[in-house]
Amino acid sequence: MSWPTVAGLEITTFQQQMAVTYGERDGARGVPATVAWLAEEMGELARAVRKGTRDEQLHELGDVLAWLASLANQLDLSLDSAADRYVNGCPKCGASPCKC
Amino acid sequence: MSWPTVAGLEITTFQQQMAVTYGERDGARGVPATVAWLAEEMGELARAVRKGTRDEQLHELGDVLAWLASLANQLDLSLDSAADRYVNGCPKCGASPCKC
Repeated sequence: MSWPTVAGLEITTFQQQMAVTYGERDGARGVPATVAWLAEEMGELARAVRKGTRDEQLHELGDVLAWLASLANQLDLSLDSAADRYVNGCPKCGASPCKC
Repeated sequence: MSWPTVAGLEITTFQQQMAVTYGERDGARGVPATVAWLAEEMGELARAVRKGTRDEQLHELGDVLAWLASLANQLDLSLDSAADRYVNGCPKCGASPCKC
């Protein structure tokens, strides 16, 4: 099975945009610093989910996605390939909906 | 500016796949439980980055992306829309590469 397309944003396009926008700076900071930033953004997302507005939640979802993409770039790994793990549904039981 | 397409996985397609695969179960667990799962996966990713193989890192990147999508589903928010924040580069300075 392959992914159908619905003419929206492709994850690889987003990851490439992050490479252009932040690649040089994040590369200079190094992987551990990027993990730390991602963890910080994760905390901001958790806070927004608990007591933020929808706009704040959307903002923080975007930031976590951005730092996740930046980390993938530094690891030279593709988020598109990472998502393949779920292409047929749950990677553990192989079903969609999951039957685990 | 809009996103160009490169015929890869679209983020909305992935988010929809997560809704079909895990939506009912995650919805029953509730948002705080999903935040907790996402935090757990974030920890597994950090561990894989520090001392895992490339395959393990790819696996954990996929899991974080999956739980992020599942959280977005439960919040009724679109990761595609969340990514729009970065469509022109850095949301703070407006440049790509970032000049902050």
